[in-house]
Amino acid sequence: MYEMKKIGGGVCAPEGFFADGISAGLKPGGAKDVAFVYADTPCETAAVFTTNKMTAAPIRHFRSKGTFKTNFILINAKNANAMTGPAGIADIEEILSAVSAAHTGLVEPVMSSTGVIGVRLPKERIIAAAKRFDLHAKNATAAAQAIMTTDTFYKMAATEVVLEDGKRFRIGAMAKGAGMINPAMATMLCFVTTDADADAGTLQAALEAVIPTTFNAASVDGDTSTNDTVILLGNRKSGAFDKEAFETTLHAMLLELAQMMVSDGEGATKLVTFDVQGALDDEDARTAAKALSNSLLMKTAIYGEDPNWGRVASTIGASGAICDEATLTIRFDDVCVYEKGTILFDESTEKRAAAVMKKERFTIACDLGLGTGAFKAYGCDLGYEYVKINADYRT
Amino acid sequence: MYEMKKIGGGVCAPEGFFADGISAGLKPGGAKDVAFVYADTPCETAAVFTTNKMTAAPIRHFRSKGTFKTNFILINAKNANAMTGPAGIADIEEILSAVSAAHTGLVEPVMSSTGVIGVRLPKERIIAAAKRFDLHAKNATAAAQAIMTTDTFYKMAATEVVLEDGKRFRIGAMAKGAGMINPAMATMLCFVTTDADADAGTLQAALEAVIPTTFNAASVDGDTSTNDTVILLGNRKSGAFDKEAFETTLHAMLLELAQMMVSDGEGATKLVTFDVQGALDDEDARTAAKALSNSLLMKTAIYGEDPNWGRVASTIGASGAICDEATLTIRFDDVCVYEKGTILFDESTEKRAAAVMKKERFTIACDLGLGTGAFKAYGCDLGYEYVKINADYRT
Repeated sequence: MYEMKKIGGGVCAPEGFFADGISAGLKPGGAKDVAFVYADTPCETAAVFTTNKMTAAPIRHFRSKGTFKTNFILINAKNANAMTGPAGIADIEEILSAVSAAHTGLVEPVMSSTGVIGVRLPKERIIAAAKRFDLHAKNATAAAQAIMTTDTFYKMAATEVVLEDGKRFRIGAMAKGAGMINPAMATMLCFVTTDADADAGTLQAALEAVIPTTFNAASVDGDTSTNDTVILLGNRKSGAFDKEAFETTLHAMLLELAQMMVSDGEGATKLVTFDVQGALDDEDARTAAKALSNSLLMKTAIYGEDPNWGRVASTIGASGAICDEATLTIRFDDVCVYEKGTILFDESTEKRAAAVMKKERFTIACDLGLGTGAFKAYGCDLGYEYVKINADYRT
Repeated sequence: MYEMKKIGGGVCAPEGFFADGISAGLKPGGAKDVAFVYADTPCETAAVFTTNKMTAAPIRHFRSKGTFKTNFILINAKNANAMTGPAGIADIEEILSAVSAAHTGLVEPVMSSTGVIGVRLPKERIIAAAKRFDLHAKNATAAAQAIMTTDTFYKMAATEVVLEDGKRFRIGAMAKGAGMINPAMATMLCFVTTDADADAGTLQAALEAVIPTTFNAASVDGDTSTNDTVILLGNRKSGAFDKEAFETTLHAMLLELAQMMVSDGEGATKLVTFDVQGALDDEDARTAAKALSNSLLMKTAIYGEDPNWGRVASTIGASGAICDEATLTIRFDDVCVYEKGTILFDESTEKRAAAVMKKERFTIACDLGLGTGAFKAYGCDLGYEYVKINADYRT
């Protein structure tokens, strides 16, 4: 038994963590565009990165360090430092070396970047700004704002977990990402801090356990960026840990952030849960659910608030998942429109299904009727705004 | 050596084939909506169908016949006869039985349908119209018009092949499809006729040889319909055949129809060839090229005429194809923007690349620099019109 309490403070909520965001002049109008997460002791470090083979320089730099402890992450928006070759790595080393010279006590600092691909980092501006950081600031909101790109709101969360014996630990997090993933300007980044008493291996296992059903279950446009990053830092300061409590809390927090990202999808107006059950196995359920969340035809039907269940059936049929029209059942929330070969889509049902689709959040549930495999994916609609945002982002 | 000459006449160009399209009242305003292809002798028959597991009733009906000869295909728009279960098959049998009673000489007739999923066929209207068919009409254009859904122009082609010995055969074809594939109303259908002297096995092999690099290389929205169908009928009347000439001609004709479909993609304004070379093998090249043609971010960048080469690199990186930023080269037509790790994207190059993207047809060429694998995929842009067409199609 344990208790989870939502608290404020974002990545600064756990003891010993600090963060801030300021302007380096990368975004127009003096908006915040560089951020840091700092811990006053070196941290156990876990991370999960993009599967994109054109991996951005900051990820290659991080990976080249092998197993290590760090207490400093420097994050910039507006430039992804991707497709920049060996020069991109050298730029990171030069920046971090200059920042280490300005601030004492940085241990194996790392970088994380999001923005345009194929342009060298504006080193001087980033260094100049990073020198001005107050490492003991607790401005988690400013940090979460600085890492935004096409995001329309900042995304952060923090939870205090009270274990049965009264001991407590905290987890804090911030994330950005509005296209999932827009390589031009909207990579998905997430930074998590904790004072839970767990080593790097335990943190890594927890991260890998929760990513598939949180960030990897979310989709805005089906693209995978060169820069996607989740980094988890743990300083063990609370002296408290419970594996189940930690993983459950981390899952809930990252799911909340993932859902925030989808509902902030470029131009999105709705957050839809694609709940696939009754598949032969979980993998088949995942295949069908992800196909639904990525389908352009589903996305436009959702935008148009059209309960076009034929598109649901067709998308599942095309997904590669084993399925059969004679065993399939489709529901919009609690409105069943097709049940095991029987079309229930009369005028009254259509009206009720259309009413469900007018909501900002609803579920399209598909029972394949074949087994016990299940998966929930999260998606959004695609409207004129998405086209507008992405048709001329660079200009 | 052989000569290929484009001719008129569509599916009626080969000797012994007839076609027409008339109104059954399925489309508003008396527009043509049912068509037939008829041959005055039973034909060798070849076909390729959708991989969608929710296969529509007409495809299941066709397949249930095993190996057979037919001389009559009845085609309707506005209703896909998909997700209609055993009743959908019974509807087809009832319709074809009534049509056979009205017209003597129909051998193993089949149906093909495109339109809304999950609604029973309007049997009476289709039967009434089909009874009015003049089986000896040669109105190929009317047939091509009748099978249109969201298509903005009809699609047909015909070629006469003159072999070295002076013998001749002809191939005729018509196709429809504007979303690739919009399960609501824009399944891809294609009907091919020929008087070439080839048996069903030879025709089937030719069809399977050319589909992967023609229709299967084309993408409007990455969705695969429940009804996709290509049927090839051959009556052997010319007494002439040459395998190479036949396959080359069939490939050229189906590629032309596939490109027509892409350039008529819902709301599309541009036809883009994604030419991937230098992959480890053809399969990897296909993976990368198809990913480019399906990427929402590429489609919106193309709509915005933005030479965003970072999205090209990122999409290839995310596709699953083996690739490396150090060996990759990217060109917009003849404008090289990135060459084996070197960014060539200065102001002048950007201007020239942007000029390429203003054209209605251009090529984005990617040399992965790893091997000899190659594949060309065909895609279009995605703009406001696509959203408009698909957001409220049913209403």
